[in-house]
Amino acid sequence: MSNYDQLISHYQTINHFNHAQAMLGWDAAANMPAGGNEARSNAMAELSVHVHRLSTQPQLSEWFNNAENETLTTEQTASLREMKRQWLQATLLPEELVQAQSKAGSKCEHAWRTQRQENDWTGFEKNWKEVVTLSREEAQIRSDILGLTPYDAMLDKFEPDTTTVSLDVLFSDVKTWLPELIEKALAKQQTESIIMPSGIYPTAAQKSLGLDIMKLLKFDFDHGRLDQSVHPFCGGVPSDVRITTRYDESDFVQALMGIVHETGHARYEQGLPKAFAGLPVGEARSMGIHESQSLFFEMQIGRSKDFITHLLRLSKDAFNAHKDPVFTEDNLYKLYTRVDKGFIRVDADELTYPAHVILRYEIERDLINGLIEHTDVPEVWDEKMKATLGISTKGNFKNGCMQDIHWTDGAFGYFPSYTLGAMYAAQYKATMTQTVDIDAAIKSGDLTPIFQWLSDNIWSQASLHTTDELIKRATGETLNAAHFKKHLEGRYL
Amino acid sequence: MSNYDQLISHYQTINHFNHAQAMLGWDAAANMPAGGNEARSNAMAELSVHVHRLSTQPQLSEWFNNAENETLTTEQTASLREMKRQWLQATLLPEELVQAQSKAGSKCEHAWRTQRQENDWTGFEKNWKEVVTLSREEAQIRSDILGLTPYDAMLDKFEPDTTTVSLDVLFSDVKTWLPELIEKALAKQQTESIIMPSGIYPTAAQKSLGLDIMKLLKFDFDHGRLDQSVHPFCGGVPSDVRITTRYDESDFVQALMGIVHETGHARYEQGLPKAFAGLPVGEARSMGIHESQSLFFEMQIGRSKDFITHLLRLSKDAFNAHKDPVFTEDNLYKLYTRVDKGFIRVDADELTYPAHVILRYEIERDLINGLIEHTDVPEVWDEKMKATLGISTKGNFKNGCMQDIHWTDGAFGYFPSYTLGAMYAAQYKATMTQTVDIDAAIKSGDLTPIFQWLSDNIWSQASLHTTDELIKRATGETLNAAHFKKHLEGRYL
Ligand SMILES: [Zn+2]
Ligand SMILES: [Zn+2]
Repeated sequence: MSNYDQLISHYQTINHFNHAQAMLGWDAAANMPAGGNEARSNAMAELSVHVHRLSTQPQLSEWFNNAENETLTTEQTASLREMKRQWLQATLLPEELVQAQSKAGSKCEHAWRTQRQENDWTGFEKNWKEVVTLSREEAQIRSDILGLTPYDAMLDKFEPDTTTVSLDVLFSDVKTWLPELIEKALAKQQTESIIMPSGIYPTAAQKSLGLDIMKLLKFDFDHGRLDQSVHPFCGGVPSDVRITTRYDESDFVQALMGIVHETGHARYEQGLPKAFAGLPVGEARSMGIHESQSLFFEMQIGRSKDFITHLLRLSKDAFNAHKDPVFTEDNLYKLYTRVDKGFIRVDADELTYPAHVILRYEIERDLINGLIEHTDVPEVWDEKMKATLGISTKGNFKNGCMQDIHWTDGAFGYFPSYTLGAMYAAQYKATMTQTVDIDAAIKSGDLTPIFQWLSDNIWSQASLHTTDELIKRATGETLNAAHFKKHLEGRYL
Repeated sequence: MSNYDQLISHYQTINHFNHAQAMLGWDAAANMPAGGNEARSNAMAELSVHVHRLSTQPQLSEWFNNAENETLTTEQTASLREMKRQWLQATLLPEELVQAQSKAGSKCEHAWRTQRQENDWTGFEKNWKEVVTLSREEAQIRSDILGLTPYDAMLDKFEPDTTTVSLDVLFSDVKTWLPELIEKALAKQQTESIIMPSGIYPTAAQKSLGLDIMKLLKFDFDHGRLDQSVHPFCGGVPSDVRITTRYDESDFVQALMGIVHETGHARYEQGLPKAFAGLPVGEARSMGIHESQSLFFEMQIGRSKDFITHLLRLSKDAFNAHKDPVFTEDNLYKLYTRVDKGFIRVDADELTYPAHVILRYEIERDLINGLIEHTDVPEVWDEKMKATLGISTKGNFKNGCMQDIHWTDGAFGYFPSYTLGAMYAAQYKATMTQTVDIDAAIKSGDLTPIFQWLSDNIWSQASLHTTDELIKRATGETLNAAHFKKHLEGRYL
């Protein structure tokens, strides 16, 4: 067996344990009673340790060295590159640091769950200090090995090959036009009236409606299912994708669009190439590209007028609400495109969301690069919120820098993915329009041409190319904020 | 660390992978869409290989040798004995035989699924020949190592320390009185009228009723849940027990009593001692003891007149059937104690069930010991069915020797557990009556005294004692068919 083939076999083995890990994680969120937590945590920790052991086995180094001198096809070369990338990610940090981070992160995150509610910055800061210190240590080690700046080395975990230089260009572009666009949209919407949902929308009806929407979006039910969990997510494995949502019986708006979003993630997973199943090269390209699929579904398809027409028809039936004034084309569209300057990222609308992300990006970039200290964060946060959205979070930590879970356990470098995803999605749309009559496809209820484009250009490509190559092949250029601007102006002006 | 402690730590590690295996198995039956099967099978096979590797690690031999000379408490000695038993089970067969069996068993079982429907004995016989040959080989190896007869060596997998000698005594006792008892019961029931369920009993109502029954039986919902699957079972892990049932909207009878049965299995698992969680000594004693719990719940509690009264009250509400003549105390009791001489074991009632089991026991015993050949089975089956239940299966293979899945993949030695379970359950009842007012407890709706007895005598004892010791401690004697006879006569005469 060639060393390349040995690597393939080894990474398929790893994948089987990852399968178990993914399903146990989904089950813990969707099914598990509280009393099952201890045994489950122990089992999942054991699987993690085992996967780590497999991912760092000493002979891998030799296999990689030898495989690079073996005769490989272009696809095999890409496959080798992605295995090596995962190997590097698994091996570059010293064991003790990973354990220290896991301990400090768990402690900080666990305490944060109550500290946030109590607006207790002082308590949080004490735990978070250690998390930040260890993350900086991690960034420095990654930086030394990868030859990147510390923050870029953290970005690399989620967005390989995306750098601060490119993000600064993209995000400073957005910052030149976003605040004004928000103001204009708000001014426009102020003159419009909207009817808020006020009925009771039973969980069973919402779920059945959600399933109808998933059918419209061609979710493959032979390879996945819909369940409930406190925090909606897309889990499982490509041949069995488990998406979840949560239902609020007093409001259907979030649950339904949440299902559209997760279905986008799911169809990417379901559409990954079977030929590379179970291998790193067959996985999603990056967090940003994953989010570009969910946000293409949510923002480009789901919030389009023609899709809202389908939503209207289906939800009128599901809720037996043919006479309810909430359910008109115009009102539903308004509900789904309402702009509001708020404190909370996860509640933000399409237009203000990038402001929340860019603020976090700038802060974590400077924090990891050592330009600011963790104790500076509340003040910097307040200043940036005032500058971009015109609202102050002074003393309001729980709705300011303590609102997200990401930083509590050191996931620095993740936030940019959200807005990168939205920007990629807008760029796909701009290209797709040249060959696909998107509006007509949505209107007809047969969205196949849209999904075919996504499958050809994104899903089937998995990690065969770098992100920049993937985007260039799909759209003819690397990421360009102009498409995002045009999309938002088209919808909100 | 002592070698004993090393063993403990090692078996806890194994347990974490078994946790994953158990949950993936439950999910495959309760949730997984068909398209997820291939990846799931691969993941589960990988976990099996890994558990096997851990269970047969070379250093275990030395650890066991040394641990036996270390100073251990009585409980530690029992713990060591049970670890060693699992180690022996994992190591005594040559790898190639296990693989050949797995292959032949899968092939035979898979083909059987259609062959059974088509009554195709000739086709089945060709595959089954290999399964029987390999099982005999397995039995011979086990026999040589364990110093037991070949069939006793197979029994040992499911019922450690139970032998053909003891089963022959018990079952020949049953055979002296069972046929006559069946005839008498049938004669008695012939004069009675019964109203069969004929309504529509919605799945949602059956499920909600099932949950009510589980509450009455004090199922711990913080450590388990109820779901649906094609074949009802009790899975998961002791801290998170997953039971399933299947619903037939034209008949509630089976689903409800199925839930009572699985709740018995579940409470045994939930009641296993926390101090030995994750260790062999903390596991259920045997298949027969497991079945003694499910059958205590189903036959001793569930089919008692006082429990039927609860069932009546709850089901009248659940089905809104206060005026339906099916739902009277008398009729419901008749439905749950109806005797019928049929071909199919899984459809058999409490009274004829032992006849089905004893027939299989006698055949598999002689088959494994080489007294008959696999081609003799249909004829022997027919003779025995005529002798015990007075019905012929000549040429009717699908309702005769091809009806069960067990033999298709070589699970010889399992069948006796069912009737052993029923007999143990009757014996517990006889003892329990001396200290617990069982009828009063059931009538009151607070069954705690009954569960306390089971917990003290069975659940909390896990595998601390051999089966015979366990039963002697609980009831003052080893298994005695007289209690079973008395129970059946009391109910059916
Ligand atoms: Zn997403
Ligand atoms: Zn059972």
